[in-house]
Amino acid sequence: MKVLITGIDGYSGWPLALHLLNRGHDVVGLDNFVTRKRVREVGSWSATPILPFPRRQAAVHEILRKTIGFHKGDLSDYEFTRGVLAREKPDAIVHLAEQRSAPYSMIDVHHAVATQVENLTGTLHLLYAMKEAAPDAHLVKMGTMGEYGTPDVDIPEGFFEVEFRGRKATLPFPRSAGSWYHWSKVFDSGDVYFASRIWGLRTTDVMQGVIYGTRTPDLTDDRLLTRFDFDETWGTALNRFIAQSVLGLPITPYGKGGQSRGFLALEDSMQSLRLAVEHPAEPGQYRVFNQFDQAYSVNQLAETTAKVAEEFGLHPTIEHPPDPRVEAEQHYYHPIHEHLPALGYRPMRSLEDGIRQIFGDLIRFRKRLVAKRHVVQPTVEWRRPDSRPLLAAREPSARAADPGPVPEATPPPADASEPRPA
Amino acid sequence: MKVLITGIDGYSGWPLALHLLNRGHDVVGLDNFVTRKRVREVGSWSATPILPFPRRQAAVHEILRKTIGFHKGDLSDYEFTRGVLAREKPDAIVHLAEQRSAPYSMIDVHHAVATQVENLTGTLHLLYAMKEAAPDAHLVKMGTMGEYGTPDVDIPEGFFEVEFRGRKATLPFPRSAGSWYHWSKVFDSGDVYFASRIWGLRTTDVMQGVIYGTRTPDLTDDRLLTRFDFDETWGTALNRFIAQSVLGLPITPYGKGGQSRGFLALEDSMQSLRLAVEHPAEPGQYRVFNQFDQAYSVNQLAETTAKVAEEFGLHPTIEHPPDPRVEAEQHYYHPIHEHLPALGYRPMRSLEDGIRQIFGDLIRFRKRLVAKRHVVQPTVEWRRPDSRPLLAAREPSARAADPGPVPEATPPPADASEPRPA
Repeated sequence: MKVLITGIDGYSGWPLALHLLNRGHDVVGLDNFVTRKRVREVGSWSATPILPFPRRQAAVHEILRKTIGFHKGDLSDYEFTRGVLAREKPDAIVHLAEQRSAPYSMIDVHHAVATQVENLTGTLHLLYAMKEAAPDAHLVKMGTMGEYGTPDVDIPEGFFEVEFRGRKATLPFPRSAGSWYHWSKVFDSGDVYFASRIWGLRTTDVMQGVIYGTRTPDLTDDRLLTRFDFDETWGTALNRFIAQSVLGLPITPYGKGGQSRGFLALEDSMQSLRLAVEHPAEPGQYRVFNQFDQAYSVNQLAETTAKVAEEFGLHPTIEHPPDPRVEAEQHYYHPIHEHLPALGYRPMRSLEDGIRQIFGDLIRFRKRLVAKRHVVQPTVEWRRPDSRPLLAAREPSARAADPGPVPEATPPPADASEPRPA
Repeated sequence: MKVLITGIDGYSGWPLALHLLNRGHDVVGLDNFVTRKRVREVGSWSATPILPFPRRQAAVHEILRKTIGFHKGDLSDYEFTRGVLAREKPDAIVHLAEQRSAPYSMIDVHHAVATQVENLTGTLHLLYAMKEAAPDAHLVKMGTMGEYGTPDVDIPEGFFEVEFRGRKATLPFPRSAGSWYHWSKVFDSGDVYFASRIWGLRTTDVMQGVIYGTRTPDLTDDRLLTRFDFDETWGTALNRFIAQSVLGLPITPYGKGGQSRGFLALEDSMQSLRLAVEHPAEPGQYRVFNQFDQAYSVNQLAETTAKVAEEFGLHPTIEHPPDPRVEAEQHYYHPIHEHLPALGYRPMRSLEDGIRQIFGDLIRFRKRLVAKRHVVQPTVEWRRPDSRPLLAAREPSARAADPGPVPEATPPPADASEPRPA
């Protein structure tokens, strides 16, 4: 199949390209490189050194003997978007080209508006471009489990049957997101659902959990590494916990740490997206996958990180700063995830094993963490009117945030970056 | 109370200003006059002659001896928005400043994106401006009953209790809109709900039905008239049916005509909005009102229009062109509306009486309909890839759409524009 990946230069987009190539698919991508730019803007960089895109393409050619087609551009440009679809005529489109950080969206009004407008415009342009230039293509659109919030009932995959005042109906499960970013994903889901209904497009909406990991079996060479963000804006909580451990800082789960979310290893996310691509939705079908492996509380992440850290001679403490987010710190959390296993999904990597692998790589690239150690600790306050210290606090001159000397760590175990056998 | 009306120059905004002034409230407004511009762009105008805004203000001063404060500007400009709130410190904000046409949003990709981006940006700017400059103000935000779609169960007011897999929870009622415009209102609702939760804002979200009418008791002089749109893009189906009757054209309900929606007379909408303003939500409360009086099918509208037309010596026929929208032509429709009656809402005008009143005014201003008779018939196709005939067909040179000679009508009954006594 020919697969177009929007956001091919990103954390998921790049390993997905490699995974699909290795499975024999043709891959073409587009990207505007805005993630590289925005991570620089907060004073950070990827913990893993990543090549500029043309050198990534060259490495793929040299190592895998494959070619990745590429269009540099922005989905906010409709003519560009339509042009790429008209020229490439992909069988599937995996849409990953979105602003993906909740903390970024919460910085101030302009970041909130930019997040929602960018994500919504890109998706709407892509939908119209599909209708006009590739109406039989299958859209696999990246959403998030965060669209659902944390309701007091089980979370179905998109739709559920309810009885209300004596009548039954199958309805979309209500969304209740927790950041402007998460709401932008809710809005995208609405637009994709509607486009699928009026134009008969094939669509799969992936409610993905939090992804972790630096590795997939396809990243066989350092030149093929994907990015890994550890700063407060672009890194996940787990990424920061591991970076904190490597830097000798306390691990900082917010509040009571009982907040639960669904998680998935990077290579299992690749497996899931590949299964979605290889089993397309029907024309007019809007299909929802809850794409995660296990739910963990923030405390479980912190404790597992601290436990694995010991294997590397690191001894992080766990501290609980007040939760800057507006969220329940203890809650029921039971999402259903049956659609992907029905297509053959089998988890390949456990959380503990994934954390071990990340430690291995972050210790290898420890100097890159040390150089940016001022960006790891949380500063954005979601409730306060003036939550703008982010950019200021990110300057290396912010001495108050200086975490002090960095501990030594033992080298990673030899097999730390090998995938678990199937 | 001091009330800020965004979109004060519009169909609802203007009579709301007069209604609140007559109830003793202070009124200040803002508008960018984009509706006047966009109605011109499709080759139409308001059936009722309306004054430029400064002359509206002067008329209010002369007739009512009241002053309306005004800020010309656009909610897409955050500094403008925050500045107005900081300067005016309103007790309540009635937010009506949105692109309000579903057919406009369906013209093409650019109209779709413009509708969603404009509405979402304006609302998000207003929410942040409230947080920063008027955190105790009460936001009354105009939504639409169309956000809910037409589910096979009763439609509650925003939230409902469901049982799913043995557990119960109160959840937002799922939205399932039928145009890019309607989805933009769904998105606004999400953002208002979230802002209310994180910042403790007072908010009322009004899921309004379709409004009809040319009159409220406050429109006591022709200089105080509000606009009335009858073209396919900016007028509602009922508005077009009455305009078609006056022009001697067939009435054209789409498809089978069984599509049901909630309706409300203009003066009852004013009463409802005033009740919401005078009974503010609590801090942090997100309150949803289903604001309509009765549900009618399109056929009921067509038949009532045809019946009332006879009183004016007009004899329209009813034709059923294919439905250009993607919607069920027969469906269950039972929305609940109990919150407004609990605040004292009592309907003042029936559909038949409202239609009679509109006929009275449209016949009075018949020359304005005749001059623009080429804009009344539907041309936008929601399903087709190339639904762009709208602007072209709106040129007076589009002879194919010429409806021929216009019949004479008898003058309106003397009491046609008097409201029904309470």
